Amino acid sequence: MNTINKTSSVFNQLKKGIILGLCGFVFQNIQAQEQPADYVNPFIGTSNYGATYPGPIAPRGMASVSPFNVAGPQNPLEKDSQWLSNPYVNENTFLTGFSHVNLSGVGCPDLGVLLLMPTTRGLKTNHLEYGTTYKNEVAKAGYYSVDLDKYNTKVELTASEHVGVSRISFPKGESNLLLNLGLGLTNEQGAMVKIVSPTEIEGMRTVGSFCYNSPEDAYPVYFVAKFSKPAETFGVWNTPDKYDGVEAQWMGYNGKTRIMENATKTVVGDSIGTYFSYKFEKPETVEVKIGVSYVSIENARENLEKETQGKSFEDIYQETYTKWNTLLSRIQVEGGSQDDKTIFYTALYHTLIHPNMLNDINGEYPEIKTGKIGKTDGTRYTVFSLWDTYRNLHQLMSLVYPEQQVDMVNSMIDMYDENGWLPKWELNSTETFTMVGDPASIVITDTYLKGIKDFDVKKAYEAMLKSADQIENNPLRPALKDYIEKGYLTTESKGPVSTTQEYNIADYSIALLAKALGNKDDYKRFMKRSLSYRKLFDKDLNLLRPRNADGTWYEPFDPDAGANFTENVGFIEGNAWQYAFMEPHDIKGLKKLMGGDKPFTAQLQKIFDTDKFDMANEPDIAYPYLFNYVKGEEYRAQKLVKELVRKHFKNSPDGLPGNDDTGTMSAWLVYSMMGFYPIVPGEPMYTITTPMFDKVTIELDGKYYEQNELVIERNNGNNGIVKEIKINDKKSNSYFISHDELTSAKIIKVTLE
Amino acid sequence: MNTINKTSSVFNQLKKGIILGLCGFVFQNIQAQEQPADYVNPFIGTSNYGATYPGPIAPRGMASVSPFNVAGPQNPLEKDSQWLSNPYVNENTFLTGFSHVNLSGVGCPDLGVLLLMPTTRGLKTNHLEYGTTYKNEVAKAGYYSVDLDKYNTKVELTASEHVGVSRISFPKGESNLLLNLGLGLTNEQGAMVKIVSPTEIEGMRTVGSFCYNSPEDAYPVYFVAKFSKPAETFGVWNTPDKYDGVEAQWMGYNGKTRIMENATKTVVGDSIGTYFSYKFEKPETVEVKIGVSYVSIENARENLEKETQGKSFEDIYQETYTKWNTLLSRIQVEGGSQDDKTIFYTALYHTLIHPNMLNDINGEYPEIKTGKIGKTDGTRYTVFSLWDTYRNLHQLMSLVYPEQQVDMVNSMIDMYDENGWLPKWELNSTETFTMVGDPASIVITDTYLKGIKDFDVKKAYEAMLKSADQIENNPLRPALKDYIEKGYLTTESKGPVSTTQEYNIADYSIALLAKALGNKDDYKRFMKRSLSYRKLFDKDLNLLRPRNADGTWYEPFDPDAGANFTENVGFIEGNAWQYAFMEPHDIKGLKKLMGGDKPFTAQLQKIFDTDKFDMANEPDIAYPYLFNYVKGEEYRAQKLVKELVRKHFKNSPDGLPGNDDTGTMSAWLVYSMMGFYPIVPGEPMYTITTPMFDKVTIELDGKYYEQNELVIERNNGNNGIVKEIKINDKKSNSYFISHDELTSAKIIKVTLE
Repeated sequence: MNTINKTSSVFNQLKKGIILGLCGFVFQNIQAQEQPADYVNPFIGTSNYGATYPGPIAPRGMASVSPFNVAGPQNPLEKDSQWLSNPYVNENTFLTGFSHVNLSGVGCPDLGVLLLMPTTRGLKTNHLEYGTTYKNEVAKAGYYSVDLDKYNTKVELTASEHVGVSRISFPKGESNLLLNLGLGLTNEQGAMVKIVSPTEIEGMRTVGSFCYNSPEDAYPVYFVAKFSKPAETFGVWNTPDKYDGVEAQWMGYNGKTRIMENATKTVVGDSIGTYFSYKFEKPETVEVKIGVSYVSIENARENLEKETQGKSFEDIYQETYTKWNTLLSRIQVEGGSQDDKTIFYTALYHTLIHPNMLNDINGEYPEIKTGKIGKTDGTRYTVFSLWDTYRNLHQLMSLVYPEQQVDMVNSMIDMYDENGWLPKWELNSTETFTMVGDPASIVITDTYLKGIKDFDVKKAYEAMLKSADQIENNPLRPALKDYIEKGYLTTESKGPVSTTQEYNIADYSIALLAKALGNKDDYKRFMKRSLSYRKLFDKDLNLLRPRNADGTWYEPFDPDAGANFTENVGFIEGNAWQYAFMEPHDIKGLKKLMGGDKPFTAQLQKIFDTDKFDMANEPDIAYPYLFNYVKGEEYRAQKLVKELVRKHFKNSPDGLPGNDDTGTMSAWLVYSMMGFYPIVPGEPMYTITTPMFDKVTIELDGKYYEQNELVIERNNGNNGIVKEIKINDKKSNSYFISHDELTSAKIIKVTLE
Repeated sequence: MNTINKTSSVFNQLKKGIILGLCGFVFQNIQAQEQPADYVNPFIGTSNYGATYPGPIAPRGMASVSPFNVAGPQNPLEKDSQWLSNPYVNENTFLTGFSHVNLSGVGCPDLGVLLLMPTTRGLKTNHLEYGTTYKNEVAKAGYYSVDLDKYNTKVELTASEHVGVSRISFPKGESNLLLNLGLGLTNEQGAMVKIVSPTEIEGMRTVGSFCYNSPEDAYPVYFVAKFSKPAETFGVWNTPDKYDGVEAQWMGYNGKTRIMENATKTVVGDSIGTYFSYKFEKPETVEVKIGVSYVSIENARENLEKETQGKSFEDIYQETYTKWNTLLSRIQVEGGSQDDKTIFYTALYHTLIHPNMLNDINGEYPEIKTGKIGKTDGTRYTVFSLWDTYRNLHQLMSLVYPEQQVDMVNSMIDMYDENGWLPKWELNSTETFTMVGDPASIVITDTYLKGIKDFDVKKAYEAMLKSADQIENNPLRPALKDYIEKGYLTTESKGPVSTTQEYNIADYSIALLAKALGNKDDYKRFMKRSLSYRKLFDKDLNLLRPRNADGTWYEPFDPDAGANFTENVGFIEGNAWQYAFMEPHDIKGLKKLMGGDKPFTAQLQKIFDTDKFDMANEPDIAYPYLFNYVKGEEYRAQKLVKELVRKHFKNSPDGLPGNDDTGTMSAWLVYSMMGFYPIVPGEPMYTITTPMFDKVTIELDGKYYEQNELVIERNNGNNGIVKEIKINDKKSNSYFISHDELTSAKIIKVTLE
C-alpha cells in the first residue's frame, strides 16, 4: 500500500503508521511490493505554476475531480486577480468545491467547472461564505481525500473516464451538497440546470475562451449527477445581475440570490447552483457520481450509467487504479531512490492525462467547427497543445503507447476532414490558435516514420501541404507569403524569428514524409524551405535576429529581451538565446554558421553558464542534448541533464519547472531519466545520455515493434559520465540511435566511468 | 368576409375595396353574411392601457403571437422606462418582433417572449438596430398581418392552441429570421437555445416575477421552432455582460456580441438569439411554426407536430377561425349598429382568452408548487386573475360556456390538491399572490349554485374552510386573526377596509355553499362573518373608513385618497367612494346603515355626479346596477349603464376603459349589452337592465340547463328606460331574476317606454 501526502513522502507516513487513519478505509490494493501506480504523487506540479491538479482522473479521462481552491481573496493566488490557469494551487488554503472537468498543466484558464461542495448546517450559496480551510490531503493515482475544517466532513474522490465520483462522510445533523454552476476557472459564464429527482440533476455549463481567445467558440459541457441518498429538500439558487433601470425600484429582489425551493424546472443563468439537503441522525456517507459529455445530457447520463451503475466508490477507484497501474507498468524502473521513482512515474502519469478522450461511451463527439456530432469506433482525442507536445510527448507515446498515438493521429486527421485544417492548439473541438508554428505535420510524420502507419497518410500529407502552401486565409501559418518569398517572417509579424524556425521544423518533417512517400520534388522543396532560418543568422552575434520587411536587421536588438516570457520583437515566449539552437534538424548547418564545433560548443555552454537557459519553457529544452553533436563533448549533456533533473524535478508540489504543458515537461523527464531523448522532432531517432536508473524495461507493442521489450541497463560508476554504450552487447560508436535500432535492440547497456 | 382595421371600420374598407389587396390571400371563409367571429376587432384595448394585443390566439390557447412594439426609445410607451404590461401599444411605431406567449389585459408585465423577427440584408442582432416602423396592420380573430417598412416584408400571423404560426413574405435577396431570446416584456432574464437543424430550433426562455413578485418562482417556457425552408446559414448570438475584473484587459471581446456561426450546441445566456439566413433569388415566403410548452422541449415539439404537422398557414388559420366562430356564435345578437356588434363580440372574444390552457396535448402540465408534472384528461386552466374575474367573468362562463367553467373549477381544486391552497392570482402554476381577498371560494360557490356540479364539492368546501379559518401561515388571507377577532383588518395591514370587504364577500359565498351542503352551523357562522364590514362604517361620512389597531378611526382620513390607483391607507386600488358600495351581498344592510333608500340613492348618485366613479377598475363596476335595489330608481341604472357603455367601450384601440383584467371589463360589457348582470358574486342571480340589442339569443348547454336557449328581446322605445319586463310572456315585478329562472325561461321581453 502506498499513498502520497503532499507534505512528506509516503514512506515517512508509513513509518508513522498514520495512513490508514487518514484514508478512512482499507485499500484493496495493498500489495507486498510497490506498483508503478503507487509511486504517483499528484501533488507534484501543483505549485510553482506547474498547473497540474491533485485530484483523480482515469488515464486520458474526460472527467476528473479537482479540489478547487483558487477563488476568494483568502487565497494568495486568486483566479480573478491574475492570469491563473489551474483549479488548485498548493499554497492556497481556502477551498470552495471540487470541479469535475479540468485541464492539467496548461497556461490559460479554462474548464474547472461543475463544482460540488458539501457543507453542513444552514444553506449558504455564496462560495466566499461557504468556503473552508482543510487538512489531511491525500492524493494518489485515481484517488484524493481531504478533511474540510468548517464542516467536520471528509471528501474522497475518484473518477472513471467520463464520471467524477465523490464519497462524502458527513457528521450527524443538517448537511448540504451544493453543485455550483456559476463559480469556475473558465472565464465563460452561463449554465442550465434541472433537478430531475431527489437523487438526480442534469444540466450544462458553458466553458471556452481559452487564453481569452475565440469567445464565439464557447461551448457547453453537459452533465448528469446522481446521488446515492435522496435529498430531503432540494432546490436551485440563482443570483441574477443587478438591474439598473427604472423598474429596479419595484424589484425588491434586485441583484439578490433567489432560493428556488423544490424547483424541478429548467433554470438558466450565469450564477446558479443546486442544493441537496439532508438531516442525518448519525454520521452518514453520500456518494455522488457526475457524468459528463460534450455532446448532450443524454450522453452524459449514458456515460454515467454504463461506466458506474451498480459500482461503489471503491469499485470505481479500484478499476481506475488498475488502469493506471497497467499503463504505468509498461515502463519498469529498477534502482534509483524512492523519490526518483516517484518523480518518474508521476511524470509518466502526467503524460497520460492529455490528449484525453472527447468521445462518449457511444462513440459520439462534437466535430470541430461543423457543429455536427461525429462518431468514432476508437478514441477521439482532444486537448492537443501541439506547440509543446510535438517536441517529445508524442514521441513517448509512439514508443510506449503506440495504440494511443495512432488514435491521436487519426483524431488530428479527422479534424482536418471536419475543419479543413490540422489542429494547432485544439481544445474540446475548438481551435484556439494559441502559439505559433505548424506542429501537427511534425507529429504525424514522426509517427509514420516510426512505423505506426494505420492512418490515412495520403490525406495527412494533403493536409500538411495545405497548411504549408496555401498563402491566403491560412489560419495555421500566418505570414506564409513572407516565409516562402523571403525565407523568413519579418518584424511585421508576431514572433517572426520563432515562427520562421517553427515553420522550418515543420517543413523538415514534410520533407521527410515526402521522401518516405516517394515524392522527390516535395522532398527537395521542403528540405530547402526547412533551412531558411539561416537568413536570420547574425554572424556578429552568433544568434538569430529579426529582420525588418526591407531585409535590414531589426535595431536596436537586445538578445536578452524576451526572457521569462516577456513580450519582445522576434521571439515567442523566449529570447534570442533560448531560440538560438532550436534548429534540431540542422544542427550541422548551425554549427557551420557558428564557425564549427568549438564556437558552437562555447555558445551553447554560455547559455548554461550565464543562466540564460530556461527549463520552464519548450524552445530550449533539448539544448543540453545538443552537446552530443560534438564528439568529445557528450559528457556535458550527461552532466547537464542530471543537474537539470535534480534542480527542477522534485517529489514536492514545486517539483515541475513551470507549466507542465500537458505533459511535455514530464515527457522530457521520463526520457531524460531513461537515458535517451528524441532529439529531432519528426525524425525517428534518439540521442543517448546517462540513464538515472540501474535498469529500465520498456514494454513494446508487438504490433509495431520487432521486440516485445527494450531493456536499458546502467552499469558501474557514480559520476554519471558514459564510458561505453553497447547495443545487444555490441559496442556503439554513436550517441545517436535510430528508432528502428532502438526498438529492435533487446538491450542497451550504458557503462559509466 | 370581414376584417377589422384599427383606423377605420371594416365596412369602410370593404367599400374602398382594399381588403383583398391588404391581406394578400383569398380568405376561405368568405361568406354571404357576417359571422360573429368576423366582428372581432383585436385592436380594441390596444391603447388606453387596455393591455390587450392584436395578434392571433386560438380560444384559450397557450400560444399567441403579438406584434411587439414596446422596446426602444422611439416608442412613447417604452417597456423599460415605465410600468408597462403589454407587448403592443397602438400608438407606438417601432416594431422589434413578434412574441409567442402573451398575457391579455393584465396590469403587470410578464411573458411577451420568443420574439421572431424577419430582416433583410446584413445581420443585425440588436433590436434597436433591426427594429422598424410598419404599416397596413390588419387584425381579426386568429389572424394578423403587417408590412415592415424597413424590409419590404409582409408578416402574417395565426395560431393554434400551442403553436404560433408566421408566414413571412420576403423580397428577393438576403433575408434573416431572428429569434431573439433576450428581448421580452417579462423582467426575467435567461434563455437556452440549441439549433437542431437548418429547419429547427429548440430551447427555453425564463419568465416570471409577475408584478415584480416571487422571483424565486421564475419558470421556463419551452419551445420548438420549425421553418418551412432550411436556412442557408445559421447561428447563435450571445451578448454576455461586461466583465469588470483584472481579466477584462485580456478580453478583447468584453461586453461585445458574439456571433456563433454554425452553432448547434446548447447556448445559454441573458441576451441570446438565433439567426436563420437565406438568399432568395425571387420573392419567397417562409412559414415558421413555434410550439410552446411549460413542461419540456419534447412536449413543445409534440404540441407543434400533433397540432400543425402537414398543415399550411391557411389551414391553421381556418381551423382557429372556425373555433372562434363556433364559440362566439353561442350568443347571437340582432339589431344594434355594426360598432355595437363589434364591441360586443370583441368583448366576448376577450373573455375567451384567459383563463387559458396550461396543459400540453398529451395532458401534461407543471403542477403548482410541487415541482411535479401533472396530467389531465380535460383542460388544466391557468391565468386566474380572480380578484377581477370573480365579479362577472366566471358567471358569464357558467352561463354560456359551462363545460369550460367546470374545468376551470376543477383546475382550481387541483391546485388546492397540489399546493394546499386555492388560487388567488395564479399564473402558469405560480401563485403570484397579487391583490387581496379570497376569491376562489366565490367562483366555486357561484358555479355550484348554478347547477354545475361535476367537481369534488366536498374537497372544494374543505379548501375554502382552510383559507377562511387557518389563522397562522395563511397565504390567502393575511391578518385573518384581526378579521375574525375584530371583524376587520386594521391599519397595520395592507388595504384593511378593502380586504375586510373582500373577506366578507368570500365568507358570504362560503355561507351559501354551507347552506347548500346542509351545514347550518357554518352557514350561520359565515353569514355572520360576512357582515363584519359594518364595523368600518362611519356614520358621519356615510362611508367605510379604516380603523387603527386600538379600534379608533384612522386620522386624518381623506375619502378621496386612493383615486386613480394611488396608494393609500385603507383601500386597494381605489378610495372610500369606490369601495363604499362594494357589499353586493348586503345592499339591504348597507342601505340601513346609510339611513334608508333615499340617503343610499343620494350617496350612490353622488359618486357618478362628482366623477368619483372609476370604470377602469373592478371595485365599483357593479355600482350602476345598485340602483335596482331601490324601487323606482332602476331607471338610473338603465341610463348609467348605457352612458358608461357609450363612453368607455368603443370600436377603436382605446375602446376599453383601462386594463381589460383578463376579460373582466369585457364580461361587464357583454352582460351590460345583453341587459342583465350577475349583481351578487356567489349568488345565482342577476339584475336586469336595458338590453342594447333588439334581440339576444344565448345558446344554453342542455347538460346543465333546462332550455337550449334563452332569448332576450327588446321592444319599442328609444330612450332606453324600461317599462315592462316579461318572462315567458308573464310580467315580472322585479328587476332581479334567479339563475334557474333565467335558464328555464325561453324568452325575456324587455319593453321600453
